[in-house]
Amino acid sequence: MSRFLSRKYESLVAYTPGEQPKEMKYVKLNTNESPFPPSPSVITAVTNEASRLQLYSDPECTDLVSASAALFGVKTDEILMTNGSDEILNFAFMAFCDSEHPIVFPDITYGFYSVFAQLNSVPYEQIPLKEDFTIDVDDYCGINKNIVIANPNAPTGIALSLHQVERIVRTNPDNVVIIDEAYVDFGAESAINFVKKYDNLLVTGTFSKSRSLAGARLGFGIANSALISDLNKIKYSTNPYNVNRMTMAAGYNAIKDNEYYMDNCKRIIVNREWTKNELLALGFTVPDSKANFLFVKSDRISGEELYKKLKQRGVLIRHFSSDRIKDYNRITIGTLQQMEIFISKVKEILKET
Amino acid sequence: MSRFLSRKYESLVAYTPGEQPKEMKYVKLNTNESPFPPSPSVITAVTNEASRLQLYSDPECTDLVSASAALFGVKTDEILMTNGSDEILNFAFMAFCDSEHPIVFPDITYGFYSVFAQLNSVPYEQIPLKEDFTIDVDDYCGINKNIVIANPNAPTGIALSLHQVERIVRTNPDNVVIIDEAYVDFGAESAINFVKKYDNLLVTGTFSKSRSLAGARLGFGIANSALISDLNKIKYSTNPYNVNRMTMAAGYNAIKDNEYYMDNCKRIIVNREWTKNELLALGFTVPDSKANFLFVKSDRISGEELYKKLKQRGVLIRHFSSDRIKDYNRITIGTLQQMEIFISKVKEILKET
Repeated sequence: MSRFLSRKYESLVAYTPGEQPKEMKYVKLNTNESPFPPSPSVITAVTNEASRLQLYSDPECTDLVSASAALFGVKTDEILMTNGSDEILNFAFMAFCDSEHPIVFPDITYGFYSVFAQLNSVPYEQIPLKEDFTIDVDDYCGINKNIVIANPNAPTGIALSLHQVERIVRTNPDNVVIIDEAYVDFGAESAINFVKKYDNLLVTGTFSKSRSLAGARLGFGIANSALISDLNKIKYSTNPYNVNRMTMAAGYNAIKDNEYYMDNCKRIIVNREWTKNELLALGFTVPDSKANFLFVKSDRISGEELYKKLKQRGVLIRHFSSDRIKDYNRITIGTLQQMEIFISKVKEILKET
Repeated sequence: MSRFLSRKYESLVAYTPGEQPKEMKYVKLNTNESPFPPSPSVITAVTNEASRLQLYSDPECTDLVSASAALFGVKTDEILMTNGSDEILNFAFMAFCDSEHPIVFPDITYGFYSVFAQLNSVPYEQIPLKEDFTIDVDDYCGINKNIVIANPNAPTGIALSLHQVERIVRTNPDNVVIIDEAYVDFGAESAINFVKKYDNLLVTGTFSKSRSLAGARLGFGIANSALISDLNKIKYSTNPYNVNRMTMAAGYNAIKDNEYYMDNCKRIIVNREWTKNELLALGFTVPDSKANFLFVKSDRISGEELYKKLKQRGVLIRHFSSDRIKDYNRITIGTLQQMEIFISKVKEILKET
């Protein structure tokens, strides 16, 4: 820390991203990436943009917004594109939360929410998940505070029903409820249609997981046009050209190729259920997941030891050290071949213990 | 504005980017883009990344940082890469400015500085440029406030000497001085070497102008490692994967192809001086520019009228409506052919008036 850092950030603890090994020699099941490459038209579109990079990108993301609005069934002024979904989440914390408008989220969820709260000096409260890691919806009804919930939740993978989401949104009419749908395409239900009915709902999404664009950085928010207008004010006061040309073209074509990506999601779901059954057979605890990962625990080996032994054997998974979940690991679902390697290594390790 | 927007942003006025016409039919001299495409190796590198977009980008930008550090003669922990230079500027306002640490900048300069100040609730003071639009260096010496100066300044194009920059940095040892070198490669002197001597200096730069990557969004900051560490804390609390794979590869190759880009800068300088002489011959006032643009005024036609009449004739330039500079227009320097068209249209218009 330098002697110049503003006092308000002195105790800020930044987010720690998952390991990104540069050698690419691991079976990489640690950062919820898709095992499938982008569709051919995305690759062509990116290639075409490469020779036009001397020109600024369109700050309004016109074509991408139009195509996305059509796919999601909203108007173009109800959607905003960002540099990954972390950016739309941060914009929302900036726009709608402050010292008088605290935010609430589960104790076990995406680790960035508490960082955004600290970054923006927003008071926050973490409500413990139930013993089985599900959200108690009653905890969030009529609480008169802003709320952010990942649905499905991360790193548990457990989803709320649309009915449960609606209860939370409906009973907090004077507060913004953010539903972070980063993983929704792997089996949960999207709340996007509710933005027509509730002016306090912001749904966020990403092209990183189901649309194979983690490395392109593209996220979005969908809400009532007044909320989107506020978020645009933040965007145009922060980084108007936040989405570059190549990513914009990639995103546009990913929307056009929706079927390719939804087929990939179905394959991930099949591989997830296969992996889940294998792990159950090995005695693991595996909550029901609607995401592209499983959150698993064994009584025969600690979470940390399993993580370390898998890494030695060339398989990377994500371990969290926080107390309540330190027995668990999060396993990204890859191709069937990757999951077979993972399961065979787990079997090897369990035999040794 | 929604009823949910935080009160602190109620009066925030966002930045207005230059026009980005979608039809591409204009001779576009309004947003300081390079008229030259990226080098062939950049195009190849982007194409190669397109098929790997399902994987996250390297949050540390390892290869790009190493190559850039080598080119700029600094250590790898003295440089930070961002999503355009607007992002590094905003990070700096966040990290080093607050209600007790106001910031000072000229009244005529990059319009985003005042937006960043408002966004981050930072008190700011604008010091008038002298009558000839030069900076009075004495105004900035020993003032015990944070300072941001674009060198060369925008939209005037006028540069400070390295000696003048050093005086400002040296005489404010307890405050951060940001030198925004977005346009430095077109004839001004970089202050990068001073980061070894002064722990309060942050130099920011961009690949948008001299390296033909406006549409890829790549900026950077160079400073003492303690300042960079603070800025990294902000980055990892905001958007750890802020630079996408394609942009990272483009930037890396743009550094490797430095000669191609510096040759292009020389061509721009030649075209700028040609354009300047033509305008002087037409009776324009043209301050000495060290940037890829000219800031010009005619006594025969108002700034707004010239802008409008050029637009009707298919030439886009940038007009600013603020009072002190409303007689001026900013003309981006393109190819010689583009500048010949511009000059011939100006002649046509002046004949009519």
